[in-house]
Amino acid sequence: MAGIKDVAKRAGVGVATVSRMLNDSGYVSADARVKIEAAMKELDYTPNELARNLYHKKSGIIAVLVPNVSNPFFAEFIDRVEAELYKAGFKIMLCNTLKDVNAEEEYLDMLNRHIVDGVISGMSSLDESIYSKIRKPIVALDRYLGENIPVVAVDHKEGGRKAAEVLIANGCRKVLHFRSAVEGESLYHDRHMEFQKIMEAHQIETVCYTLDWRRLDTEYYHQVVNEIFAENLEFDGVFGVDRLAIECMNELIRRHKKIPRDVKIVSYDGTYITELVEPKVTTIVQPIDGLAEQSVKLLCELIDGKKYKNKQVILRTQLRLGGTTEKTD
Amino acid sequence: MAGIKDVAKRAGVGVATVSRMLNDSGYVSADARVKIEAAMKELDYTPNELARNLYHKKSGIIAVLVPNVSNPFFAEFIDRVEAELYKAGFKIMLCNTLKDVNAEEEYLDMLNRHIVDGVISGMSSLDESIYSKIRKPIVALDRYLGENIPVVAVDHKEGGRKAAEVLIANGCRKVLHFRSAVEGESLYHDRHMEFQKIMEAHQIETVCYTLDWRRLDTEYYHQVVNEIFAENLEFDGVFGVDRLAIECMNELIRRHKKIPRDVKIVSYDGTYITELVEPKVTTIVQPIDGLAEQSVKLLCELIDGKKYKNKQVILRTQLRLGGTTEKTD
Repeated sequence: MAGIKDVAKRAGVGVATVSRMLNDSGYVSADARVKIEAAMKELDYTPNELARNLYHKKSGIIAVLVPNVSNPFFAEFIDRVEAELYKAGFKIMLCNTLKDVNAEEEYLDMLNRHIVDGVISGMSSLDESIYSKIRKPIVALDRYLGENIPVVAVDHKEGGRKAAEVLIANGCRKVLHFRSAVEGESLYHDRHMEFQKIMEAHQIETVCYTLDWRRLDTEYYHQVVNEIFAENLEFDGVFGVDRLAIECMNELIRRHKKIPRDVKIVSYDGTYITELVEPKVTTIVQPIDGLAEQSVKLLCELIDGKKYKNKQVILRTQLRLGGTTEKTD
Repeated sequence: MAGIKDVAKRAGVGVATVSRMLNDSGYVSADARVKIEAAMKELDYTPNELARNLYHKKSGIIAVLVPNVSNPFFAEFIDRVEAELYKAGFKIMLCNTLKDVNAEEEYLDMLNRHIVDGVISGMSSLDESIYSKIRKPIVALDRYLGENIPVVAVDHKEGGRKAAEVLIANGCRKVLHFRSAVEGESLYHDRHMEFQKIMEAHQIETVCYTLDWRRLDTEYYHQVVNEIFAENLEFDGVFGVDRLAIECMNELIRRHKKIPRDVKIVSYDGTYITELVEPKVTTIVQPIDGLAEQSVKLLCELIDGKKYKNKQVILRTQLRLGGTTEKTD
């Protein structure tokens, strides 16, 4: 295989000139460029990218950590992040963190080993202290991981409030509320707190079911819904993430309940599956496009050397009315 | 930052010994190993992975190309492939090929540039000739891309036959059939041919709608369903991919048709969304786990130096009965 020396020889220029051109560093005359390009073509020379990365200490790869890419929220997030990173000249390395407790740390370690130039951490399951020690470009989704790590988050408090308000406006008196166990300082939990607070202020009863945040699979959701219905609970409203809200709706339909006449449903996340069912689900939509854009933007800034202290970018949710609640003014 | 020379000096051994240990090549005495490990710890030495990759000409990264990760079929495929690759010691680089016509070629080029050790190509949109020139580890999903590139595929002919048989057993007389435009030699299209053949043999009328295979987005599916229903076609059976089958079902429900009494529906792929709707959709399930396992297995073999000629691994589909067809014997 032809090397840089062969290219230089064929082009009749010095090795340093070829190197400058390949690394886009320093002056190379137009004449030399033409000769080098011709020589590279003739010799079928492929620059060794690893060697160039070593020289630049840059791999052009970003690791994106999510619990589970088959979850529709993270599938859409990855889809958008991949496109944004591609525009910015980066490739994406994907890690599903739920499959193995050690996987997340292993990917973080790749920052130190120059395999990746940065990390976007979506729903970390590690202790904050592990992150805060790392002095490399990291952006966190929805969770505080240290003062040097910018956070892109959604105003979940507002999201929880909007959900509560729709159910109240629909006249609900007893609401089934699926909440996540609070692990770490995830901003994601704010919605539950706010939702409960508003319900209590309006003296509306809630039945809380606390979910295992490590489980995002179909079997688990079925199990949860079966448990709920086995208890013969009475409720006229439901609030939970898309998948659970839909599983509940289906079980209610199978039990010949009319939606929204008998039970009102509001889901959280607003992924495409809320529009795939009949009736479409009234939902609090997370701005996935915005989360992806902002995460990539901040990460690129960090890679370019910008420093942030306690930076937070907060995006707003949006209520999208479907057929699982009644129209109100 | 400490380098390999500092480690060697502190450990009281030669640089070549440290190098042999880091690269796991050649003999290093147990005594030297202990000293080197201690020195690395004391100096907080992180081996530069890029340099080691350069030495080994191995990056430990596999590129997986799919049209669109937000599509549930490819989301599940990526999820399983990522887990299988992780077990085999590889990281996954993800590329959504639909976002940019040049992206697929760019990722293939990374094979030559030593950025990735192999490629799993899911639903390629490039000409076969581009692939057949590459002499690197590539495994193709569902499509022939040259004699050196093993194919992992599903017996789509059997899948098409099973779908036809269910609709026939349900007494359908006029079936709406969503088919993909035939591009390249994708094995995926066999199901359409087989489905049509069986329908014709049974003198069952079909209305074919040919889909743009580059579009997998919600807007497109809505547009297709709107077009279909605007024409006031009469049909008592539907066969199409999960998303389209579900969109059709919802429109039928909105038009007060009873499923399965008035219209029978069979979908293709059998992703989780077919079990997320009410009624659950009768579907031809693709073995996504098996596709992922076999793709990774073959790719690892190629990376280890094994050569294949015209290798095909064909997996079987499975009929899963839901509530969109009637029970038959």
